[in-house]
Amino acid sequence: MRPSGRDLSEMRPVSIETGVTKHAEGSCLIKVGDTHVMCTATIEPRVPPFIKGSGLGWVTAEYGMLPRSTTSRMRREAAMGKQGGRTIEIQRLIGRSLRAGVDRVALGERQITIDCDVIQADGGTRCASITGGWVALKLAVSKLMKAGDVISDPLTDPVAAVSCGIYAGQPVLDLDYPEDSEAGVDGNFIMTGSKKLIEVQMSAEGSVFSRDQMNQLMDLAEKGVEELAEIQKAAVNA
Amino acid sequence: MRPSGRDLSEMRPVSIETGVTKHAEGSCLIKVGDTHVMCTATIEPRVPPFIKGSGLGWVTAEYGMLPRSTTSRMRREAAMGKQGGRTIEIQRLIGRSLRAGVDRVALGERQITIDCDVIQADGGTRCASITGGWVALKLAVSKLMKAGDVISDPLTDPVAAVSCGIYAGQPVLDLDYPEDSEAGVDGNFIMTGSKKLIEVQMSAEGSVFSRDQMNQLMDLAEKGVEELAEIQKAAVNA
Amino acid sequence: MRPSGRDLSEMRPVSIETGVTKHAEGSCLIKVGDTHVMCTATIEPRVPPFIKGSGLGWVTAEYGMLPRSTTSRMRREAAMGKQGGRTIEIQRLIGRSLRAGVDRVALGERQITIDCDVIQADGGTRCASITGGWVALKLAVSKLMKAGDVISDPLTDPVAAVSCGIYAGQPVLDLDYPEDSEAGVDGNFIMTGSKKLIEVQMSAEGSVFSRDQMNQLMDLAEKGVEELAEIQKAAVNA
Amino acid sequence: MRPSGRDLSEMRPVSIETGVTKHAEGSCLIKVGDTHVMCTATIEPRVPPFIKGSGLGWVTAEYGMLPRSTTSRMRREAAMGKQGGRTIEIQRLIGRSLRAGVDRVALGERQITIDCDVIQADGGTRCASITGGWVALKLAVSKLMKAGDVISDPLTDPVAAVSCGIYAGQPVLDLDYPEDSEAGVDGNFIMTGSKKLIEVQMSAEGSVFSRDQMNQLMDLAEKGVEELAEIQKAAVNA
Amino acid sequence: MRPSGRDLSEMRPVSIETGVTKHAEGSCLIKVGDTHVMCTATIEPRVPPFIKGSGLGWVTAEYGMLPRSTTSRMRREAAMGKQGGRTIEIQRLIGRSLRAGVDRVALGERQITIDCDVIQADGGTRCASITGGWVALKLAVSKLMKAGDVISDPLTDPVAAVSCGIYAGQPVLDLDYPEDSEAGVDGNFIMTGSKKLIEVQMSAEGSVFSRDQMNQLMDLAEKGVEELAEIQKAAVNA
Amino acid sequence: MRPSGRDLSEMRPVSIETGVTKHAEGSCLIKVGDTHVMCTATIEPRVPPFIKGSGLGWVTAEYGMLPRSTTSRMRREAAMGKQGGRTIEIQRLIGRSLRAGVDRVALGERQITIDCDVIQADGGTRCASITGGWVALKLAVSKLMKAGDVISDPLTDPVAAVSCGIYAGQPVLDLDYPEDSEAGVDGNFIMTGSKKLIEVQMSAEGSVFSRDQMNQLMDLAEKGVEELAEIQKAAVNA
Repeated sequence: MRPSGRDLSEMRPVSIETGVTKHAEGSCLIKVGDTHVMCTATIEPRVPPFIKGSGLGWVTAEYGMLPRSTTSRMRREAAMGKQGGRTIEIQRLIGRSLRAGVDRVALGERQITIDCDVIQADGGTRCASITGGWVALKLAVSKLMKAGDVISDPLTDPVAAVSCGIYAGQPVLDLDYPEDSEAGVDGNFIMTGSKKLIEVQMSAEGSVFSRDQMNQLMDLAEKGVEELAEIQKAAVNA
Repeated sequence: MRPSGRDLSEMRPVSIETGVTKHAEGSCLIKVGDTHVMCTATIEPRVPPFIKGSGLGWVTAEYGMLPRSTTSRMRREAAMGKQGGRTIEIQRLIGRSLRAGVDRVALGERQITIDCDVIQADGGTRCASITGGWVALKLAVSKLMKAGDVISDPLTDPVAAVSCGIYAGQPVLDLDYPEDSEAGVDGNFIMTGSKKLIEVQMSAEGSVFSRDQMNQLMDLAEKGVEELAEIQKAAVNA
Repeated sequence: MRPSGRDLSEMRPVSIETGVTKHAEGSCLIKVGDTHVMCTATIEPRVPPFIKGSGLGWVTAEYGMLPRSTTSRMRREAAMGKQGGRTIEIQRLIGRSLRAGVDRVALGERQITIDCDVIQADGGTRCASITGGWVALKLAVSKLMKAGDVISDPLTDPVAAVSCGIYAGQPVLDLDYPEDSEAGVDGNFIMTGSKKLIEVQMSAEGSVFSRDQMNQLMDLAEKGVEELAEIQKAAVNA
Repeated sequence: MRPSGRDLSEMRPVSIETGVTKHAEGSCLIKVGDTHVMCTATIEPRVPPFIKGSGLGWVTAEYGMLPRSTTSRMRREAAMGKQGGRTIEIQRLIGRSLRAGVDRVALGERQITIDCDVIQADGGTRCASITGGWVALKLAVSKLMKAGDVISDPLTDPVAAVSCGIYAGQPVLDLDYPEDSEAGVDGNFIMTGSKKLIEVQMSAEGSVFSRDQMNQLMDLAEKGVEELAEIQKAAVNA
Repeated sequence: MRPSGRDLSEMRPVSIETGVTKHAEGSCLIKVGDTHVMCTATIEPRVPPFIKGSGLGWVTAEYGMLPRSTTSRMRREAAMGKQGGRTIEIQRLIGRSLRAGVDRVALGERQITIDCDVIQADGGTRCASITGGWVALKLAVSKLMKAGDVISDPLTDPVAAVSCGIYAGQPVLDLDYPEDSEAGVDGNFIMTGSKKLIEVQMSAEGSVFSRDQMNQLMDLAEKGVEELAEIQKAAVNA
Repeated sequence: MRPSGRDLSEMRPVSIETGVTKHAEGSCLIKVGDTHVMCTATIEPRVPPFIKGSGLGWVTAEYGMLPRSTTSRMRREAAMGKQGGRTIEIQRLIGRSLRAGVDRVALGERQITIDCDVIQADGGTRCASITGGWVALKLAVSKLMKAGDVISDPLTDPVAAVSCGIYAGQPVLDLDYPEDSEAGVDGNFIMTGSKKLIEVQMSAEGSVFSRDQMNQLMDLAEKGVEELAEIQKAAVNA
């Protein structure tokens, strides 16, 4: 029934390659099917003004798409002179989600910026960004711990994200672009590896949904995040 | 336990005054406690390019805050030269939510723009904007129906929104500003009067939450929306 | 002869309601006929760089219109990414006019920002903003005096503004929108309650005027400001 | 008493050199003392959308200052990414003033843009821009008349502008920069050569003024405009 | 003598991988040492207004760097709200250079946009962009030829670019970042495979150079472009 | 053969008038045929952050065109809200070129900004800006030396620029606008008075060129710069 022939609860093949750029303190290229996102982590000693002197750390994110990561070319946001609403919404979500999984006292007063740049898009770029972004973050933090700059691990439980939706009347896991553009309901679920919830966003596009359907999507999401967390752990230990 | 002395499942007093500006096709001033939002609806014959000629209608929204609607003065976005990320996120949510409750075929090829301007803020401005915005929208559509420009009612079920969150470890309904700024988990629930879900957003701020807690918040939200829908119906029939 | 049936030298009904928002140090809603402007005063300890350390105070103003305050919807300036020329011209006028009526030594080194937001427009918004802005300013200063932060009153004489113009060949007081859009000559007169001049702007739209006509408009303006100053005094003493 | 040693009612030396750039349809370099402004007129067949098809012409203006036209270097507005409030206020005034002196029916459906670029500033740049701008405009219109594109002269009476103010307690004509920066009251008077009024702006800087003083300034302004109109006529006939 | 141990006339290892993204009409990832640039070509039926109806084709380019492509993180241009001067200079150079090597009559009235996004930077990104950009362009054009949309090949001779400079007093080929940041003279040489010149830019940084040195750099550049052209041909035939 | 009737190696008449504005520390109006550029130098005590405390000086440049300096009116960059790519490219070139001719140790830790504003354009504005800019710079430095603020002359050799190109198949010196818009190859050559090279830029427009042609253009450029340097020296000694 799914365009890709996948089962309703089957994710696309996921791979995470780490150390893909020599300059960043942490980096990976995550591939969720044909969605490819490059994630890098940059450590900086400064924090935003509102937490200066608090001893707390900060994690923030920026998101972008290469102009031809999509089927037809998108205008370059730098050339348009501003980031679109969708970009801003997504990068706020990535930052918030990753921050929720960090012990900011343990991190100490420093900022880590996660850049998520979509190289190729086929649906689910925000979820891939969060999942890959956590890996880049973890690698950067490991470097701080090896150097003795951070003592207690501020990242004990992975943060991963997956989309689920109602496609052709059925709840399905991990929407690809053909499904996403047709889905009546579309949700993003961000959880820890131990299935604690961080952020849940469900949205009807020209329809409505019931609480039962919401619970079915939650079930699928838990399955997906469980699989992603294993892949994340394998990647950071590789 | 709540700063305001309210019960856990008690909303703030809500009022909706309609017809508050002489120029708009529909308007209301919604007060949810000390949060006051002016909502106006503007009917225009043109639609966005991507649906031109489709026969479908469009509903969109813009959101703003008066500079001194808040405790300390915020910089005016027009003077800063751009809308902030929070503003963009909120107005996209309002537009999406109201659109989900509209029969766009019945509306016909025209656009209705809902402007939500916060006169005084005390938490929950986006929810008040959606709830009041629906009333302004309904009044504008009624005008179209009275004029015979729209035959079948495109708005049969109200759309309302309420926030719930975990405050001091307890699930509470309708967060005000003192609660919102302290809440560990914060959610916005947009539903129809008949409790169909349109959008659900739950977000942990520096913590995580369980699926049980999520369900408790859903229960509270259903209660809140039920009350709001009654007030909306009374307002449009006044 | 006037569309509203008013006498040539008759102002629209004017009311000033104070204390309309709980956050601002001073606030009022001024109604001049169907023109409604919300004015708030914000006290801040900092002053602009060019008077830092001088001991002098500063008063500045910002002006905005709600998108649907007008007959047809105006584009939101925050969304357009800049304030229009008319907005900038008006807010500079408001700031300059109010500043001229302040004893800046008595105010002391602090800044008061007056926000004037037009809720509903029917001509004369800049004059209503100045007249209402002075009331908000006065209320904020009274708070400073009650707290002992300001000893000697820096606002001894009200500042009020009124428009006059040549409509259908006749000098008229307090132009409303139907008159304003037809007037050949249009002027704004800002004076103190004791009829000292602060700013006079007269402008011909596609015509010219004589010095005699100018004097007739001045006479009308003096009458109008006298009435406004009484209403201002009543409002601040309420 | 004046820093320059001029009499109270004495203008600075004024010269207008025409034909200073080979590309523009009309051009002049006006010098009012050490204030030098280059004015060019550009004729274009298109008019703004709001008068399209009306048969009426349009005159508009833009104003700029070279970065080092002033004592200390000003930041280039193009580099800052926007025109400042003062620039916008001034160019609106220039356009409005020149437009008031044009028979827009006789001009026919075309637009003339007057660019006023300050080469060297010493006070009174907006007045010099209007006075010189009228000359550039007249020269461009003469070209249209010679070509038979315009039959009846749309510019029968010059438009000129002069500033007057209260300096050291005395009313003075044609403020230069040292006077302007000290003046308690400062006004710009735009009139036709036959002393019809087009725009009057008087503004108190940290003080107030009486109606008597206003009349004294008007008297001075009439004298100044009379002198300027003679120089304009000589320039266009040269 | 060179930090990398290369001979004076030795290029870094160069590889070009084609078909790296599924959406673009042509694409490659070019690696010149540690400088990695992703190049994509997008074919669109429209051309810029100034050649509309001429029958001629157009080639243009855009350039960007991922924020962490560099040693320390650069601010994202989309977030800053504009492209920097260096970016604009580079993308104009890429577009101009590629255009010079195209038979625009043979291409026909269509536009091809080359996007060059730097994944990792180590000096020479603009040269790598041109060399890789030509490959992406060639692949897109081949697709048009296979489809019969273009009959005669508009790209008969490759366009490639290489930098040369005076480093530590010696002329060297293909500057990497450590050399580039120290070089007294730095040049970019864009040529066809048959050594016809398209663009030459030589620039002294805090020094000057002689015509003899210029000729030595030209000799090196010819050697470098010869090698690059072979790699380009191999890549497009792979 | 040339539209102007000049010989292939003949420059347009060049004049440099100094001291053209009373405010700038150095200024000139350079005329190269009908290309007229006003150049001013501003001395400021501050330097850019990246050299603060180094004891080194800085020279930078900004470039602009009056809207009607060209055949048809260009939009004002300040009104468009940004400098175009061409402007940015040119002002970076001017700054880089002038900086290369300065002994920054001798200049001392101060910044000199060269503003080049095109009053009338007829081709070669960037070259005229560099040649005239050097004169303004030299005059400002002379003032510093006279005041004893700079001891050893940081500007011992003039910097001048000239364009050459292939027009109608022939190498020609100093392209004017009619030639520039037709030339197949176009170059800018920036050298010192003693013919040391500072920057060379050659660019083919829809064609290619040979190394022989490049050498012919270099020969012409050397002749042109020699003549310009004499005129510069005369101007600064006048």
